[in-house]
Amino acid sequence: MYRILTLGVAAIPSDTSRIYIVKQAMEDYGIDLLVCRNPENVLFLSGYWPLTGWSLILIPLDGDPVLIIPRSEIDYVEDSWVKNVYTYEAERLEYTWNPYRFIMEILEEIGLPRGIRVGCELGMETIATGTIAGEASYACTPTFDLLRKVFKAILVDATPLLSKLRMVKSNLEVEKVRLASKIASIAIEKLIEAVKEGLRESELAALAEYIVYSEGIGFEGRVKRARGFAFIMSGINTSRAWYPFNISTNRRILRGDPILIEFNVCVDGYWIDITRTWILGRPTDEQEDIFNTLVEAQESVYRSENPGLRACDVDDIARSIVRARGYDRFFPHRLGHGVGLRLHEEPIIHPLSTTLIEKNMIHTVEPGIYTDRYGLRLEDVVLILEKGVENLFPRYKFLSLSE
Amino acid sequence: MYRILTLGVAAIPSDTSRIYIVKQAMEDYGIDLLVCRNPENVLFLSGYWPLTGWSLILIPLDGDPVLIIPRSEIDYVEDSWVKNVYTYEAERLEYTWNPYRFIMEILEEIGLPRGIRVGCELGMETIATGTIAGEASYACTPTFDLLRKVFKAILVDATPLLSKLRMVKSNLEVEKVRLASKIASIAIEKLIEAVKEGLRESELAALAEYIVYSEGIGFEGRVKRARGFAFIMSGINTSRAWYPFNISTNRRILRGDPILIEFNVCVDGYWIDITRTWILGRPTDEQEDIFNTLVEAQESVYRSENPGLRACDVDDIARSIVRARGYDRFFPHRLGHGVGLRLHEEPIIHPLSTTLIEKNMIHTVEPGIYTDRYGLRLEDVVLILEKGVENLFPRYKFLSLSE
Repeated sequence: MYRILTLGVAAIPSDTSRIYIVKQAMEDYGIDLLVCRNPENVLFLSGYWPLTGWSLILIPLDGDPVLIIPRSEIDYVEDSWVKNVYTYEAERLEYTWNPYRFIMEILEEIGLPRGIRVGCELGMETIATGTIAGEASYACTPTFDLLRKVFKAILVDATPLLSKLRMVKSNLEVEKVRLASKIASIAIEKLIEAVKEGLRESELAALAEYIVYSEGIGFEGRVKRARGFAFIMSGINTSRAWYPFNISTNRRILRGDPILIEFNVCVDGYWIDITRTWILGRPTDEQEDIFNTLVEAQESVYRSENPGLRACDVDDIARSIVRARGYDRFFPHRLGHGVGLRLHEEPIIHPLSTTLIEKNMIHTVEPGIYTDRYGLRLEDVVLILEKGVENLFPRYKFLSLSE
Repeated sequence: MYRILTLGVAAIPSDTSRIYIVKQAMEDYGIDLLVCRNPENVLFLSGYWPLTGWSLILIPLDGDPVLIIPRSEIDYVEDSWVKNVYTYEAERLEYTWNPYRFIMEILEEIGLPRGIRVGCELGMETIATGTIAGEASYACTPTFDLLRKVFKAILVDATPLLSKLRMVKSNLEVEKVRLASKIASIAIEKLIEAVKEGLRESELAALAEYIVYSEGIGFEGRVKRARGFAFIMSGINTSRAWYPFNISTNRRILRGDPILIEFNVCVDGYWIDITRTWILGRPTDEQEDIFNTLVEAQESVYRSENPGLRACDVDDIARSIVRARGYDRFFPHRLGHGVGLRLHEEPIIHPLSTTLIEKNMIHTVEPGIYTDRYGLRLEDVVLILEKGVENLFPRYKFLSLSE
């Protein structure tokens, strides 16, 4: 017999409509029971962000959701709107590590119907990293086999359903992304103060991450876990700063160098992803022209994007500006991607993506122009409103950093 | 037709015997072709540490190994002893993201036999995070289905084979872990200087990570990528600093507090995992007694561990010291775990683990004693020698930090 905690929901910031929407989608996809383990999906479906990746959320089409979590994470489940929580201990001195045994026993005890269609994370191959940032755990064959066995289930890939639902953020989620954005902007401001000739790329990147960790936790009394990942590329290294190549080296920054920061900040499971590029000293005419092109491409999106457009239309709004300025062959990547529960999620803002833009989507707007000598990119994040968009990272943009 | 790069191996630090050992194990396990995608396994099998997690290593029982990698990672494959490298671009403006299509085409082109037994990462559910530390990619059903389809294969879980082989490190691997250890020790020394009353847990943790990133990259001219993950727990928070609970809060450190750092450092794909506990000011008699017990438990392992012992015997060497001092009921977790290609890997040093200790294994030795008021833990890492062990993190241990 496992202990069930029945938590009082009154005190919990709840996203009550979420479960309703999820169940509707499950019906559309022919799923009787949704079982997720990847932390970002557990967070999406329960409001609780697992620490270690060994928690399961179960959403039966008929019935209340259930969480199964390691006992050590009990303090963190308070953030959830799920009332029924089972806990287990995967390892003790009396037995070696085996979470499956306990998860299996708990699933047996819950006693859901057999012979059902269970939706799970079959098709996922990328996850956001979590609190124990050096190691990430995810659902793979052992978990899928366990679900098959316990429920005598036909497994269905729930990834398309989850990707689709995750695209549209709740107000609670938007607030979390705003917090990540605020912390990122504090770090960027301090970084601008700190940049000087002779500093290494890695020193600057490390500073950005330092600020997020040291100031993010406890921020406004609302943040439990915060972490930043920063990559600084300078000089010639910026010429290959296109997705998915991000790395900081020990190159020292010189006067006249372009300095590009790719900056990912996570606050309690919610992400923001931004890029700034500066020139240390006076930009060349070409650099200024490229920078102004990027700003104009972004501004054009802010003015013209609306719910109902296709993602490819949004890409084209920016790309046509870059094309008109003659730089289109130096802008080799998509304009952006969704962000929130992971650094990169749907919708993809690509010339061939026909996904319709909807209210409460959040995506990056990141035009970049890369010559063989240097590259410049600006990346901001927009929230789609009823009409128009809001830039969630509204920091003043400029190119030249004086020493 | 995909471009194959045939790299000159002469200039590459090679682990030539590795492929031979792997093929022997494949024969034992009845595997005709080993295909891995999780970065730590690609590193183990090829010497190249992927940036994004979308690279495959193929090792046919009869034939030379092959790498399939995103074109953007071409500079990093230079570290590999694998000569045949295929590259692909998963996304361009002319098509949306689809790595599977290209991987499939390359696999077809390589033209290995069909109807074979393919070993892959079916049973893995935890990976080390990589360079793009905020996001991790791994092999799951889409990759497995692709292998089934291309090779008309029976898939075999290669995780037990890989776990077993990974336990015993090559000399090249030991050198990488030594580098991680050196960088970690620099950070620990600076941290000791920095600790003072009033600092937040998160500030200290952020500082430790800052030092690894800013000083690790380029270290001794040998390190390309370095990253640290630090968690600081202080005062009452140390009482729950047992595995797997690691988190820094914004609690300010007070005089008399125990301060525990759980510190994970990764250098070019190789990890070290250490813990230190200090008291800011003068320890109580009980704290001193607990600390001395931990030191004695560790020293006892350093004196007595040898190849040929079972892991449970090693656990018992330390635990019997803790028991003799009357603290055994406050030491609730295993003594240690393997470390190297991931933070936690085999062998597990647990009272019930019968794995035989072998030369060139690397594992942690981390006795911890947790009362309901505070917890102390020391975690070091040993390399098993022909006879005896070497402590890879030989920093002087002391309890009291003066302000």
